[in-house]
Amino acid sequence: MDITKDISEEIVRDRTDKLQEAMRASAVDGFLLTQNIDLYYYTGSMQSGYAFFPSHGEPVFFVKRSVERAKLESGIMVKELGAFRIFGETLAKAFPHIFSGTGGKVKIAADLDVLPAQTYLKLSELLQASGPCALVDGSPIIRRQRMIKSPLEISRFEAAAITVDEALNEALNFLKPGVTELEWMARVEYELRIRGHIGLMRMRGYNQEIATGMFIAGSAAAIPTYFDGPAGGLGLGAASPQSVSRRAIERNEPILMDIGCCIDGYVIDQTRTAVIGELPEKLVHAYEVSEAIIREAERGMVPGAICSALYAKSLEQADAEGLSSHFMGFGADQAKFLGHGIGLEIDEWPVLAKGFDIPLEAGMVIAVEPKFTFPGAGVVGIENSYLITEGSPRALTFTKEGLIKLP
Amino acid sequence: MDITKDISEEIVRDRTDKLQEAMRASAVDGFLLTQNIDLYYYTGSMQSGYAFFPSHGEPVFFVKRSVERAKLESGIMVKELGAFRIFGETLAKAFPHIFSGTGGKVKIAADLDVLPAQTYLKLSELLQASGPCALVDGSPIIRRQRMIKSPLEISRFEAAAITVDEALNEALNFLKPGVTELEWMARVEYELRIRGHIGLMRMRGYNQEIATGMFIAGSAAAIPTYFDGPAGGLGLGAASPQSVSRRAIERNEPILMDIGCCIDGYVIDQTRTAVIGELPEKLVHAYEVSEAIIREAERGMVPGAICSALYAKSLEQADAEGLSSHFMGFGADQAKFLGHGIGLEIDEWPVLAKGFDIPLEAGMVIAVEPKFTFPGAGVVGIENSYLITEGSPRALTFTKEGLIKLP
Repeated sequence: MDITKDISEEIVRDRTDKLQEAMRASAVDGFLLTQNIDLYYYTGSMQSGYAFFPSHGEPVFFVKRSVERAKLESGIMVKELGAFRIFGETLAKAFPHIFSGTGGKVKIAADLDVLPAQTYLKLSELLQASGPCALVDGSPIIRRQRMIKSPLEISRFEAAAITVDEALNEALNFLKPGVTELEWMARVEYELRIRGHIGLMRMRGYNQEIATGMFIAGSAAAIPTYFDGPAGGLGLGAASPQSVSRRAIERNEPILMDIGCCIDGYVIDQTRTAVIGELPEKLVHAYEVSEAIIREAERGMVPGAICSALYAKSLEQADAEGLSSHFMGFGADQAKFLGHGIGLEIDEWPVLAKGFDIPLEAGMVIAVEPKFTFPGAGVVGIENSYLITEGSPRALTFTKEGLIKLP
Repeated sequence: MDITKDISEEIVRDRTDKLQEAMRASAVDGFLLTQNIDLYYYTGSMQSGYAFFPSHGEPVFFVKRSVERAKLESGIMVKELGAFRIFGETLAKAFPHIFSGTGGKVKIAADLDVLPAQTYLKLSELLQASGPCALVDGSPIIRRQRMIKSPLEISRFEAAAITVDEALNEALNFLKPGVTELEWMARVEYELRIRGHIGLMRMRGYNQEIATGMFIAGSAAAIPTYFDGPAGGLGLGAASPQSVSRRAIERNEPILMDIGCCIDGYVIDQTRTAVIGELPEKLVHAYEVSEAIIREAERGMVPGAICSALYAKSLEQADAEGLSSHFMGFGADQAKFLGHGIGLEIDEWPVLAKGFDIPLEAGMVIAVEPKFTFPGAGVVGIENSYLITEGSPRALTFTKEGLIKLP
């Protein structure tokens, strides 16, 4: 088989060390990883199964399918999962120092923010096989670790940023009055896909989904949705109530192009605003404020800066321009953030939002997306993805800024 | 806003009645729907929130976002969710006949096969607000109900089947030696998308994901994956380990075109096999056996036929042709089914599989996909989606059958 590891064993080793260190700091005896993205990050393989990381010692990836492929991809030891009904015994035998060492209650963490309750309940029962065991939510541990990206990960964001830039520039040739949002997005997606976009954008949040972004114009753009972001869209019906619709693009209305892609697992996120003709003055102004907010964010995004303070600052700027009720959505449907971490998932940590009071650190990658919504008129704004460094943040997205004016 | 209901209030009423009847038969006092697809099916809206269906009386959709949009889409009453921390009290006030009637323990079902454990644990706690309450898995109730499709649903499958046929026929013009799997799939996806494919194929199974299907050829097609289906594919790396790769299509190898799309929420699933040139005799034979199996399945898929027996019959046929170890995957990585229900999700019930001992009923829609995997050589097979009727099943997919031979 033409299968090769795409994460080196050294990187997997380093991730294991950091996970085990965090587990010990939280008095967790073992970590059971269940979600495909978590499995990929810590083992290098996304085959189906469960990976168990003891707080000390070597982890094992118990694979259901395909064992053969997992052995070629994984940087940790692979074993056959075997019968699920005896998985508790299997773990106890493989990790006697965890499951029969102390006499007290064993504390096992898992990614309970994504693991379905049905499987959680079954696992909780199976884990009692060799004595009392508590299955607790360990998702903050892994989400915190995954905030800090490695050079390998940065290189994948860079590849994704190139892809988005090329696809957008190609597709701009097809942006004309009368073209529908759907038709233009199909073109963008084609250009992304032939360049290696995997065809999926993964989100961790329950019920959150996205194809390749939002391409929405005029009044359709300003329609609110369930999607936890600053722009919604009319969509293709109640079964797909966001992003593109069959509405034709018109002259003199804002066209929001919030486009991402996923290359080798890593997503990038970028927004530009275009118009065919001219925008009304108040929308031009709001667009300019979005650029001013992102400039200010660039100045503020240094190690030690507090995420919630960066969001508060952007709110202040919007308010000073009389635009606070339009910022990141309108009225009751405003999103309450300025930016979000990206990585293997599009909704990673940190979030530049109220209540997210942690400091930035070098290695974080954050999509910053100030936008303004005007019901009946549209959405304008900008979004770049940034790597936090020891100095100023480095923009990973590089498509030319400014309102894109087409004749 | 240009938002209209896309499921009539009559249909929502009918679904509610059937759900409440099934709840009463299971002694369930209330059903809390949490997943976007479940919400859409029972309310007509996919906005974020929780829908509560009492065993008797009117249901309520408690919406977080967008309340305004949910009111336009939903066929049941919409209320603001309000503060989540008092959601237990909110429910108790809205449904006093459920939460403070009996004095005994209240039994509330939810879609625990998809609800993340973290939220399940929180909801379990909140539901104790007005007395003892058990939160149990009700997913079999809704999965059983959703097996039987209505005329509205059938019309959406039909639209999706037309879309797949047109996209495939357009894209066949681009299928030439040297074109990569990725390039050709990008073309198919473009053709699907401009016709209204929503850009997503929803799957209920944890960790299962798919873009628009599998387009895989020759040796790359036969590589096993975690995906619970009969064909895998090399994919675009360990972070996308299924379906298309960057391998170029060659002459005289089997090209498996397993393609679906989602129109107005409903997915269709269809597979054809092509070759540029000629296939080796053993693969031609295996392809012919796949057609023979699907013909036999067509004869057998009548109301009352047992799902597991249909699968067993297909195994027998494969075995009689000496192909049992190649059927639905190879060796340890064989999938253990012949077909699967489709609908809003691509992995609905029933499944034509061992252990699935229920009888077919008119109104079920099932994708039947006999395939044969030959390591090093490729995968061949066929797949149609069928509506079970009182008589013979009606094929919803209609693309010409037979091995597609390109010059």
